[in-house]
Amino acid sequence: MAFNDIFLRACRGEKTSPIPVWFMRQAGRYLPEYQEIRGKADFLTMCKTPELAAEVTLQPVELLGVDAAILFSDILIPLEPMGINLSFKEGKGPIIEPSVRSERELKALKKIEPERDVPFVLETIRILRRELSDKVPLIGFAGAPFTLATYLIEGGTTKSFVNIKEMLFSAPGLFRKVLDLITEVTISYLSAQIDAGVQAIQLFDTWAGILTRHDFKDAALTYARRVFNSLKGRGVPLIYFVFNGGHLLDLIRQSGADVIGLDWRTDIETALKVLGPDVIIQGNLDPCLLFLDEERLRDRILEIIYQGYGAKAHVFNLGHGVLPQIPPEKVRLAIEMIHDLSR
Amino acid sequence: MAFNDIFLRACRGEKTSPIPVWFMRQAGRYLPEYQEIRGKADFLTMCKTPELAAEVTLQPVELLGVDAAILFSDILIPLEPMGINLSFKEGKGPIIEPSVRSERELKALKKIEPERDVPFVLETIRILRRELSDKVPLIGFAGAPFTLATYLIEGGTTKSFVNIKEMLFSAPGLFRKVLDLITEVTISYLSAQIDAGVQAIQLFDTWAGILTRHDFKDAALTYARRVFNSLKGRGVPLIYFVFNGGHLLDLIRQSGADVIGLDWRTDIETALKVLGPDVIIQGNLDPCLLFLDEERLRDRILEIIYQGYGAKAHVFNLGHGVLPQIPPEKVRLAIEMIHDLSR
Repeated sequence: MAFNDIFLRACRGEKTSPIPVWFMRQAGRYLPEYQEIRGKADFLTMCKTPELAAEVTLQPVELLGVDAAILFSDILIPLEPMGINLSFKEGKGPIIEPSVRSERELKALKKIEPERDVPFVLETIRILRRELSDKVPLIGFAGAPFTLATYLIEGGTTKSFVNIKEMLFSAPGLFRKVLDLITEVTISYLSAQIDAGVQAIQLFDTWAGILTRHDFKDAALTYARRVFNSLKGRGVPLIYFVFNGGHLLDLIRQSGADVIGLDWRTDIETALKVLGPDVIIQGNLDPCLLFLDEERLRDRILEIIYQGYGAKAHVFNLGHGVLPQIPPEKVRLAIEMIHDLSR
Repeated sequence: MAFNDIFLRACRGEKTSPIPVWFMRQAGRYLPEYQEIRGKADFLTMCKTPELAAEVTLQPVELLGVDAAILFSDILIPLEPMGINLSFKEGKGPIIEPSVRSERELKALKKIEPERDVPFVLETIRILRRELSDKVPLIGFAGAPFTLATYLIEGGTTKSFVNIKEMLFSAPGLFRKVLDLITEVTISYLSAQIDAGVQAIQLFDTWAGILTRHDFKDAALTYARRVFNSLKGRGVPLIYFVFNGGHLLDLIRQSGADVIGLDWRTDIETALKVLGPDVIIQGNLDPCLLFLDEERLRDRILEIIYQGYGAKAHVFNLGHGVLPQIPPEKVRLAIEMIHDLSR
């Protein structure tokens, strides 16, 4: 089997035929094969056991025919060796203890040395590169500094973001110190992933979309840009995905990333009006559209493929992760359609 | 004391000096005077007791100097007489039982007759009009059909919106019937509020911002437009607030509303590039910016006032509700600044 490099070529600006496709959370609960492993080990154990993490990473490559694998892990993994107690409660999201809201709590945090502190991630990558050598590229990832800071400061998920914004607005010096530290950790974490073999990087900025344009520049973009600048020249494409970032597109373009990921809200055509045609786009089918019947799903996929032709190159993806409620056959069908319709 | 009509004049397109200001959730937990009443009655009891609802509605008018009062109530109030069991659990948001996901559950729902089913809302309005006759106008409100449908179908708040989107995409006929019913209820509810004396209406579309532009048209805009068309000619300004709707602005403009409410994400200058200058804008200070010190808060308020001058008229507001963590003095100070800086 020949190595399928359409994902990497598209990330470098080439219009491919077909266009490449991978789905966020393609290794996930909607797959019975994933559930089987998850039944034997909890989520964090899966992340920390290279054989298990590698196995679920490979599942969608083998079962669905995606054009890239993405490391099975979690954006919060680097927080633990910083001195944070991380746990996941079913249906409640992550719990981060202690939350960091003072100089004292910040001082207790440590930088990480990835080979010492998260060897399981790097070992997973090495296994995967061996397994994938004749298949598809492997994507590594991390949370963007603002998003990690949100978890760290809020202590978990939040609807109001009041603690991080309180710090940003009433203790900006402390906020900057927290972000500086997280940015440094993120750079060394991603750098180690590249050393271990990942062939592309996605930076997930799940929460930066809650910011005004004014505040996004100071609180998120500055730090994301520092990450991208540090990794430029390492030879791997860099993807920046700001969830709910439709109002920030012109600023996101200044991040230094090679590829701009879009959630489903802003259609590619509208995005390109702001970004211009000389950008590489990743996205952006609403994951819930996989509930559509085959015919209507085809129409919506086709709409996105056509809009993507307006960009320099296009990597098809969902606008967010695959939902557990979607039957795997539907996911496989969507991937087939995307390939067929873009050929 | 002369009746202060700057809010109504701005809603009709007049550039006023100063510009009017009111804040979403201006009657709320951040006020000790509110907490005192809330200590004696639960939230739903407050909504259903005209004397209490009127009292908390008046508090920000007297304590803060806002230019409009907004009825103290909840967007879910009309669901109860439709046959829904509504409850609020502290910190968990509303619980709607049963959730409506089938023809059978839809058939069990009833239309409402506001004078019979929600007399307490109308009585609150009548009390308030007497109390406010020499002060400021009274705003009535309702949830937009898509947002109410979200609560009804999800059974409460949600992060994934998977149930409403599943219905929208896999049972569109049922979805339309649910929305038709809610739209009819919303129209009769708002019409009764106008009969009872409210002088402006705000339609809250809290969740429509999760939709693609494609789906917003079919699933939200159609029904919001039906509400506005039915109320046009009743002589009260109509405000449409779509939370997180920055990607939908040109479509929102087609709703038939007189005033477009913006959350904090999209700044007014950017919004006007899409909307053109011939629109009346309400918004849009990030509620968390009230954590800033006085000097920096003044800069941010000034930025919004300047941007608002680019519109036909501008009603100052927050981009979302006042947070419980904000000291009332800061809220009062912000309102004073807005008046001073726009005079």
